[in-house]
Amino acid sequence: MAKVVCFGEIMLRLTAEMGVRLNQAEQLAVYYGGGEANVAISLANYGHQVAYASKVADNALGQAAENHLRSYGVSTEPLLKGSGRLGTYYVEQGVGQKATKVVYDRQGSAFASMAELEWALLELFAGVDVFHVSGITPALSEAWREWTIQLMQAAKTAGCKVSFDSNYRQTLWSQEEAGKFLQTALPYVDYCSAGRLDAIHLLGIEETTADVSDYYQLMHQRFPNIQVFFSTNRVVHSTSVNELQGTLWSNGETYTAKPYLIDPIVDRIGGGDAFTGAILHGLLSQKVPHETIEFATAAAVLKHFVKGDCNQFNEAEVLAFMQSDSAKIHR
Amino acid sequence: MAKVVCFGEIMLRLTAEMGVRLNQAEQLAVYYGGGEANVAISLANYGHQVAYASKVADNALGQAAENHLRSYGVSTEPLLKGSGRLGTYYVEQGVGQKATKVVYDRQGSAFASMAELEWALLELFAGVDVFHVSGITPALSEAWREWTIQLMQAAKTAGCKVSFDSNYRQTLWSQEEAGKFLQTALPYVDYCSAGRLDAIHLLGIEETTADVSDYYQLMHQRFPNIQVFFSTNRVVHSTSVNELQGTLWSNGETYTAKPYLIDPIVDRIGGGDAFTGAILHGLLSQKVPHETIEFATAAAVLKHFVKGDCNQFNEAEVLAFMQSDSAKIHR
Amino acid sequence: MAKVVCFGEIMLRLTAEMGVRLNQAEQLAVYYGGGEANVAISLANYGHQVAYASKVADNALGQAAENHLRSYGVSTEPLLKGSGRLGTYYVEQGVGQKATKVVYDRQGSAFASMAELEWALLELFAGVDVFHVSGITPALSEAWREWTIQLMQAAKTAGCKVSFDSNYRQTLWSQEEAGKFLQTALPYVDYCSAGRLDAIHLLGIEETTADVSDYYQLMHQRFPNIQVFFSTNRVVHSTSVNELQGTLWSNGETYTAKPYLIDPIVDRIGGGDAFTGAILHGLLSQKVPHETIEFATAAAVLKHFVKGDCNQFNEAEVLAFMQSDSAKIHR
Amino acid sequence: MAKVVCFGEIMLRLTAEMGVRLNQAEQLAVYYGGGEANVAISLANYGHQVAYASKVADNALGQAAENHLRSYGVSTEPLLKGSGRLGTYYVEQGVGQKATKVVYDRQGSAFASMAELEWALLELFAGVDVFHVSGITPALSEAWREWTIQLMQAAKTAGCKVSFDSNYRQTLWSQEEAGKFLQTALPYVDYCSAGRLDAIHLLGIEETTADVSDYYQLMHQRFPNIQVFFSTNRVVHSTSVNELQGTLWSNGETYTAKPYLIDPIVDRIGGGDAFTGAILHGLLSQKVPHETIEFATAAAVLKHFVKGDCNQFNEAEVLAFMQSDSAKIHR
Amino acid sequence: MAKVVCFGEIMLRLTAEMGVRLNQAEQLAVYYGGGEANVAISLANYGHQVAYASKVADNALGQAAENHLRSYGVSTEPLLKGSGRLGTYYVEQGVGQKATKVVYDRQGSAFASMAELEWALLELFAGVDVFHVSGITPALSEAWREWTIQLMQAAKTAGCKVSFDSNYRQTLWSQEEAGKFLQTALPYVDYCSAGRLDAIHLLGIEETTADVSDYYQLMHQRFPNIQVFFSTNRVVHSTSVNELQGTLWSNGETYTAKPYLIDPIVDRIGGGDAFTGAILHGLLSQKVPHETIEFATAAAVLKHFVKGDCNQFNEAEVLAFMQSDSAKIHR
Amino acid sequence: MAKVVCFGEIMLRLTAEMGVRLNQAEQLAVYYGGGEANVAISLANYGHQVAYASKVADNALGQAAENHLRSYGVSTEPLLKGSGRLGTYYVEQGVGQKATKVVYDRQGSAFASMAELEWALLELFAGVDVFHVSGITPALSEAWREWTIQLMQAAKTAGCKVSFDSNYRQTLWSQEEAGKFLQTALPYVDYCSAGRLDAIHLLGIEETTADVSDYYQLMHQRFPNIQVFFSTNRVVHSTSVNELQGTLWSNGETYTAKPYLIDPIVDRIGGGDAFTGAILHGLLSQKVPHETIEFATAAAVLKHFVKGDCNQFNEAEVLAFMQSDSAKIHR
Repeated sequence: MAKVVCFGEIMLRLTAEMGVRLNQAEQLAVYYGGGEANVAISLANYGHQVAYASKVADNALGQAAENHLRSYGVSTEPLLKGSGRLGTYYVEQGVGQKATKVVYDRQGSAFASMAELEWALLELFAGVDVFHVSGITPALSEAWREWTIQLMQAAKTAGCKVSFDSNYRQTLWSQEEAGKFLQTALPYVDYCSAGRLDAIHLLGIEETTADVSDYYQLMHQRFPNIQVFFSTNRVVHSTSVNELQGTLWSNGETYTAKPYLIDPIVDRIGGGDAFTGAILHGLLSQKVPHETIEFATAAAVLKHFVKGDCNQFNEAEVLAFMQSDSAKIHR
Repeated sequence: MAKVVCFGEIMLRLTAEMGVRLNQAEQLAVYYGGGEANVAISLANYGHQVAYASKVADNALGQAAENHLRSYGVSTEPLLKGSGRLGTYYVEQGVGQKATKVVYDRQGSAFASMAELEWALLELFAGVDVFHVSGITPALSEAWREWTIQLMQAAKTAGCKVSFDSNYRQTLWSQEEAGKFLQTALPYVDYCSAGRLDAIHLLGIEETTADVSDYYQLMHQRFPNIQVFFSTNRVVHSTSVNELQGTLWSNGETYTAKPYLIDPIVDRIGGGDAFTGAILHGLLSQKVPHETIEFATAAAVLKHFVKGDCNQFNEAEVLAFMQSDSAKIHR
Repeated sequence: MAKVVCFGEIMLRLTAEMGVRLNQAEQLAVYYGGGEANVAISLANYGHQVAYASKVADNALGQAAENHLRSYGVSTEPLLKGSGRLGTYYVEQGVGQKATKVVYDRQGSAFASMAELEWALLELFAGVDVFHVSGITPALSEAWREWTIQLMQAAKTAGCKVSFDSNYRQTLWSQEEAGKFLQTALPYVDYCSAGRLDAIHLLGIEETTADVSDYYQLMHQRFPNIQVFFSTNRVVHSTSVNELQGTLWSNGETYTAKPYLIDPIVDRIGGGDAFTGAILHGLLSQKVPHETIEFATAAAVLKHFVKGDCNQFNEAEVLAFMQSDSAKIHR
Repeated sequence: MAKVVCFGEIMLRLTAEMGVRLNQAEQLAVYYGGGEANVAISLANYGHQVAYASKVADNALGQAAENHLRSYGVSTEPLLKGSGRLGTYYVEQGVGQKATKVVYDRQGSAFASMAELEWALLELFAGVDVFHVSGITPALSEAWREWTIQLMQAAKTAGCKVSFDSNYRQTLWSQEEAGKFLQTALPYVDYCSAGRLDAIHLLGIEETTADVSDYYQLMHQRFPNIQVFFSTNRVVHSTSVNELQGTLWSNGETYTAKPYLIDPIVDRIGGGDAFTGAILHGLLSQKVPHETIEFATAAAVLKHFVKGDCNQFNEAEVLAFMQSDSAKIHR
Repeated sequence: MAKVVCFGEIMLRLTAEMGVRLNQAEQLAVYYGGGEANVAISLANYGHQVAYASKVADNALGQAAENHLRSYGVSTEPLLKGSGRLGTYYVEQGVGQKATKVVYDRQGSAFASMAELEWALLELFAGVDVFHVSGITPALSEAWREWTIQLMQAAKTAGCKVSFDSNYRQTLWSQEEAGKFLQTALPYVDYCSAGRLDAIHLLGIEETTADVSDYYQLMHQRFPNIQVFFSTNRVVHSTSVNELQGTLWSNGETYTAKPYLIDPIVDRIGGGDAFTGAILHGLLSQKVPHETIEFATAAAVLKHFVKGDCNQFNEAEVLAFMQSDSAKIHR
Repeated sequence: MAKVVCFGEIMLRLTAEMGVRLNQAEQLAVYYGGGEANVAISLANYGHQVAYASKVADNALGQAAENHLRSYGVSTEPLLKGSGRLGTYYVEQGVGQKATKVVYDRQGSAFASMAELEWALLELFAGVDVFHVSGITPALSEAWREWTIQLMQAAKTAGCKVSFDSNYRQTLWSQEEAGKFLQTALPYVDYCSAGRLDAIHLLGIEETTADVSDYYQLMHQRFPNIQVFFSTNRVVHSTSVNELQGTLWSNGETYTAKPYLIDPIVDRIGGGDAFTGAILHGLLSQKVPHETIEFATAAAVLKHFVKGDCNQFNEAEVLAFMQSDSAKIHR
C-alpha cells in the first residue's frame, strides 16, 4: 500500500435536519470535513498509509476534527493545533426541487490565518508516494498561493507524485486569480482533477466542444507533466435525483464509466472527494484505467447514500456495489 | 408595505415521524397553524404589517401559538386569550402510496366556543388594507356564519379589501350550508380563492367544462364585486409526488403559471395557504398578474419542502427559487 | 374469527438510521420480529384469536418481545422463557441504489438451543384452526427439522390446517438440506407460501418456464394435499422503489393481483410476512381467491410504508387503501 | 392469581422534556395512563388476570391506549370504543425547586360523555375477585356518580370485593360534592385508599391529630364494611427529592413501612397508583399486612425512577429492590 | 408599562447534551442569547414594550436570532443586519463536580466589527424610559467603548434612565481597561448591576470587608447619580447545586432577599440576566425595594430550571413560584 | 512517553436512556468498551503510544470497535478480526435508589472463542514498556487462563512491566478458580490493581482489619515482585451519589488521595478503568506516589460525569479539575 500526505483545511459542518430551515433549527448535526481530508479518509479506507497535514484550533472542536480523522485510521501526526478558530459551515439540506443552501463561516480559521508554513517539509514528504492538495487552499490568501507552490516543489523534490483537485469556488477567489495560480502550479502536478469549465474559464482554453476529452488533450499539451486528468459529469434532475458518470484521461486515452442514477440522494457533499480518493486508489494500486474509472464512479455514487462529508466504504464494499444489482437485502 | 388583518382559528398540530403510525408514536412533533394564520405569516415574511385576530386558550399551548406567530413578526395585539381549549389535530404522515391521515380534535376550542365577537371592529380595521378570512371560520357554527358576515361588513365599511379563501371542509359543514353562506358572503369579497369544485358544488354552477377560467367568468357574473379569483390545480401522483400549477383570474383574463413537479414532498399541509399568501402579496405589491401567479405557485411549491404548516421563505428566496435550476448546492 | 397458532423464533432487531452506516451509528432503533411472529400480529390485527409459541431469553429483551406481541393482542401463553440469549440482527438500511445490509447475530438463542420440544402438543393445538410455521425453524438445526415435523403431525392429528412458508435462507442451510426437509414436511401442509425458485432449487423441479402457475401445478401433483400456493413477484428498481404483485393458486386456478408501485419504501423487512398473514386471513374468512390475493398484495404493500417488522394495519385500513387513490390527505 | 376488573378513564399524556417549558416544546413524549389503568397494569405485572373496562375514542389514539394496556398483559375485552375524543393532559416537568405543571384537556372525552353504562354488568363481574375504581370517575359528572354506585352494587352482588381510591381532585368537583358521593359509595367498599385530608375535608371528621391511624379508626366506625385503609405520607423536599412512607390499616391495626428517600425523582406521576396496585397485590396474594405495606411502599418508590404513568416492575424486581442496598451495578 | 431599549450583541449558542463532551458531540442544541437580549426578553415577558438594538449577520443565523427575540414579543425594529458573522459560543455542560466549559468563537461578528454607530440616536431613544447596556459591549473594542459612552449620553439627553450591568469578562479586556471605562461611563448610569469584586478590582476601592453594602455606599459616594445597585451572591456547592441570594441597594438602604437553594441546576447561563431583568421590572413597576429584590431573586432562580439563555416566566409565574412551596404538582 | 500494550476483550454496549427500562426502550445508545480498552484510551489521552491487542468480529460492529479505539489515537495494529460475534451487554441505567442493571450477552464472541493465541508475541512486546491485562480475560475459559500466563511470561521476557487488574466478576468464574489463577499469575506482575476483598476471597488472606494497607503488606510478602498495589474505596450513597477515594501502595508506603463526592453520577461504568489508566500514567511519567494517587482519583471521578465507558480527559484537564473548585463556568 502507498504512503500519502493530504493537505488542506478541515472544517466543522453543522447541518439542519432535512425539511427544517437553518433559521428554525433547534438541533444541528455535527460533521467534520474538507476536500483533502475526505480524500485522506477514502485512501485510508482503501488500506493506504495516509497522513493529514493541516492546522486546527487548539480547542474541543479542533480535537474533534482530529478524532474524526483518526477514527478512520488517518495519521494526524502532521496535524497542528494553535490559536484561531475552526472554520465552520452551516448546511440547510435541499430536497426535491429545493436546493441545498450553505452558509459559510470560515474566516479567521487557524489554518487560513497561519503566518508561515509550520511543517518541516523534508520530513513531511520523506518516503511519501503521493501529495494531494486542492484549489481551496491557494484560494484562501496570497500567502497560501505561495505556500501551495512551495509545498508542491518540496514534494516533487522528495520524489512524490503531486495530485491536485482544482475545486474552484467563486466565493473565495476570482477566475483571474485562480487562472494565474494554475499557470504556476500545474507544471508540478501529476494527477489533476479538473473539468471542461476549468479548462475554459481558468485556463482560457477556447470553448469549441462539449467533449471533455478534447480539453484534456489541450491541457496535456500545455502541461505535459500531467499524466492523468479526471472529472465527473453530473446531470442534476433535482436536489434528490442526480446522474453521475466519471471520466479519466490517461496516456492520450479517455475512459468513461457507466452512468449511475442516484435516487434519492442522502447527502451530496463530498461526492467529488470520494471520486478523487478512489481515482488515486486506482492509480496507487495499479488498476487499469477502465477499472479505475468504474471503481471511482461507484465510490462517488455510494458516498451520496451516507450522511457526512466522507466516503465510508472500503474497497470490498465498493466492488460489491459495482457487481450487485444493488437493491437486494443482503442477509 | 400594506397593513393586513388575518382572522381565524389557530390550532396545535401533533405529528408522528414519517413511517410511524399515530398509534405507535412515542414522540410527536409540535407545530402550530391554521389557514389564515399561515397566510398571515406568509405576508409578514414578505414584509407586510400583519396582525392576527383570533382567540386561543389561556394556557401554555395558547401562549405557544402566540410565540409562533410573533416569531415571524406577526402582531398578536388582536389575539385574545380565554377559557376553552386549543383546537388540536394529529397527523400521521403518508408517504409513497400511503395517504396522510388526520385525526381532528378541535371541538370546544376557545375560538369555536366564543359567545360573542369580542373585538372592537372599528379599531380592528382602522387603516387596514386587506382583511383575510377563510371558509373554515363560518363552518364552525351558525354564530360564526353571522359573525363572519359582520366582520366582512365592518371591513368594507372601514375601506378594507376583503380576501376570502373558500377552503371547503366536508367534515365541518354540508355543501348546502356552505353554499348558503357563500351567497351571503361573496358580495363583500374582493379577492377570492375558489376553484371549479366550489363553483359546481357550493355555488350550483352547472358543470360544463373542465376549464376553471370559464367558472371564474360565471362567478364573476354573479359577484361582479370580486376582482380576483385564484386556485391551484394539483395532480397527485402519490403522497410523495405531486404536480402543482396556479391559476389567477383578474379583470377578465386568466393567467396560468408554469407547472412544478414536487418530488418528494416533505409536508404538504399549508401548501394552499402559502399560495394564497403569495397571491395577496402580488396584489398588495402591484405585481402584474403574470408575475403574481408565477410567484404564488413557486411559493406554494417551496412550502412542500419544509416541515410545519407555514411558508418560511421571504420574497427574495421565492424569486431565487423561480430563477434557479433549483437543485444546485448554493455555496 | 379463527383460532391460530404461529410458531417460530422472534428476534431483536437493531437498526441504524437511514443514511448512517452500522459502524458509525450512535443510536440504534429497537424492533422485535420474526417471520411467524409477524404473521401472528397480522392475523391478530385482522381480528383472529392468535397465540404465539416460541421460547425467548428470560431477561429484559425476552420480556420486551413478549410486550411487543401482546400489544397487538397476540396471546403469549405458549411463549416460554428460559436461559440463552435472544437472537439479534442488525440492519443498515439501504436507500436508492445502496442495498440494505443485515448482520445476523442469532447463534445460541434460547429458541435455537432448546433441548426438547417443551410444549404439550395436545394442549397447544386444541381447538386451533390453523398452525403456521416457516422454513426458518427447521433451518436452525437437525433437531428442529425433526421437531418441525412432529409439530406438523400433531397439528394435523388435532384437525388443524398447516400453513408453511418456505422462506429459504441460504446462510442457514444448504439447498440440499432444505430440499430434503421439504420432501418430508410438505405432505403435512395445506397452505404453502413458495415460489418458482423454491420449486426449482429446493424441490428439483425442472426449470422450463417463468410462469409460477406452472410450477404450482407441478408441486400440486407431487403434494396433492396442498390446497393453496401463494407468493409475490417483486421487481426491484432500487432499494427505495419496488413493484409488487401477488399470486395465489387454489383449486387448479391461478389468481394474480394488480401490481403496486412502492415508492419510496420505508422499511421492506416483513413485507412477505404481511402478505402471508393477509392470505391466511382471506382463507380463514372465506374471501374468494380473487379478493384474497388483492387484499394480501395491498397488505404487503402497506407494510413497506411503516417502520418495524410487522404489519400495523387492520382489515378496514387495508380495504380503504385498496379503494383509495391512496395519496390524498384524509381529513 | 386473582381476577380483577379495573374501571375508569385512560388518557393521553403529552410531556415536554425536562428543562423545556410547554410553550417552547418542539417535541412531546407520548404516554397513556389513568389512575385505574395504572393499577390494572401493576396487578398484571404481578401476575393477576386483569381486565380494564373503559371507553376510548374510536381513533388512532384510542387504539394506542389499548395497545399500551395489552402490552402489559391487561385484557381489553371490556374496553369500548366510540365517538368523542381521548382525554388529554400536558405535563411540564418540574425539577429542583420548580414545580411540575399540568394542563388538563379532558373535556368531552368518549368516556366522560357516555350516555349510559354500556357494559353488561353481570358478565363484567362474573368470577371477578376485585373491582377497582377511583374517585376520578364519579367526579366527571352527576351521571357518573350514579353509575359508579351502580357498578359497585353490581360488583358486590357478584361477590366481588370493591376497591376504591378516593383520589380527590379539586379541579373536577367540590369537597361538598365529593363528600356527598363518598357517603353513598363507601358502604360498598372493602379496600379504601384515603388519607387524613380526605377524612377531614370530604367526610367531615374533626381535625384533632396528625396521626392517620386515628382517622382510619373513625372512618372504620362509620363504614365498618371497609376492611383495609391505606395511604402514603409524602415529604416534599423539592420536586426532585421526596420522602415516601406507606401506611396500612387493617383489622384495627396500623402498619407503617420504612420511609424511602427518592432522589432524584424521574417521574412522580402514577406513584400513588403503583402504591394502590401493590397493596391490592398484597391483599390478593395473602401477604401479611407488614409485608404488604413494605412491598407497596417499595413499589411506589420504584415507580418514581421510570418515565410514564405506570409501574413497570414485577414482584421479583420489587422484592429485590427491597432487599438490595439499591445502588450497586447488578452485573 | 414602560418602554425600554436594550443594546448589545446577541450570539448563537451551541450546546452538547449533558454528559457528552464537545469533542464527542454528534448533535448540538441551538439557542440564541446575550446578556442584554436576555434582559430584553425578561422585560417583554413582564409586559413592557421592549426594543432590541443590535446588529446581526445578514444570513439564516441572524434571522434566527431575530425570530427568537420576536417570539417573546421584543421589537426588532432597531436590529440591523449586515455583513460579518454571528458571534458563536459552544457549551459543554458541567454536572456535579465537573465545571461547565465554554468555547468562545465570537471574533469578527457583524456587531463587533461595525465601523460606526449606525442608529439614529434621537429616534432610538424617543419616548424611551430605560436604556440598558452591559460591560460586554465596551469590552469588544476601543471603538465600542466610545460608542457606549455616546449611547449613554444620547439616552440621558433623551431623558432615559441608563441601566448598566458591569458583567466583567477577563477574556475580553483587562481590569485596567474596564476600570478606565467605568470611570467615564458610570457618571451616566442610574441603575447599576455590580458587585464587591467590581468595586475592588475595577474601581480600585480598598478591600476592607465582605459586606457588599459597604461597597455600594462607597460607590454611591463616587457616583452619586447612581440610584440603585444590585447583585447576587452565589454559593457554589457544585455545578449542579448553587445557592443564590440577591441584594439591592437603594437610597442608602440595603435589601437582601431570602436565599434559594437551586438543586439541580438545568442551565445556569443567563441567571444573572434574569436577575437584572427582574430588578428593572421592579423599578419600572414601582415595586417597593423589598418586593423587587425578592421578585428578582426568584426570577433568577427559576431561570436555572429551563434550558436556554433567557428567562421564560411571566410575572404571575414568578410570583406563584415565590408563594408556592414549589414542589407540588400543579394539577 | 511510554509504549504500552493493552490486551483483552472489547464489547458493544447498548444503553437505554435514563428512566427507561430495557424492555421498554425504543432506542439504544451505542458505546464500545472493555476494561483494558478503557485503560488503553486513558493512556493514549495522556500522550502514550498505546496499542490494543484483541480480536473482534469481522463485521460492522467489529469495525466500529476499531474506529472507537483509533479515534482516541490507540493503535489497532494488533487488533485481529475473524469469525464469531462481538460480545454485547445491555445497560438499564439506575438513578437515585434504583440500581443499574446489566444484561450480559457475551457468549461466543470472536475473542472468547479463539482457538489459539494468534499474535507473534516477540513482535507484540518488542520495545514495549508496559503490558496491561485484567482478570476478565483469564475468567473467560481454561484456555484463556493458560494464554494469559503465556502472555505475561512473554512480556517479562521482552523486558516489559506487567500490569494486572484483578477485576473479579463472579458471573464468569468462581473464587476458587480465580484464586488458583492468581497464584500462578501474580509472580509475573509488577503493578497490581486489587483490593481488600481480593486479598481475602481470592488469595485467602485472613480478614483481620479493614485497612487495605495491611493487606497490601501481606500480599507484597507473598509476591515481592509486585511493586505497586492500588484500588479505590467507593462509598455508595445511592446510584446517583457516590464518594470515591484512591489508595496506592508503593515501596512499603500507603498513599491515600483526598475523597471526592460524585453527585450526580452520569455514567459509572469505566470509573475503575479510568483509575487504573491514570495510575499507570503516574508510574510511567515518574510522578511521585502522592501525585499519582491524587491524579488517578481525580481522573476516576471525572469519568463519572461523561457517558460511555472510557475516560475522555487529557492530563491538562485532569490537573485543572484537581485545582479548580470545579463548579465555575469556565469562560
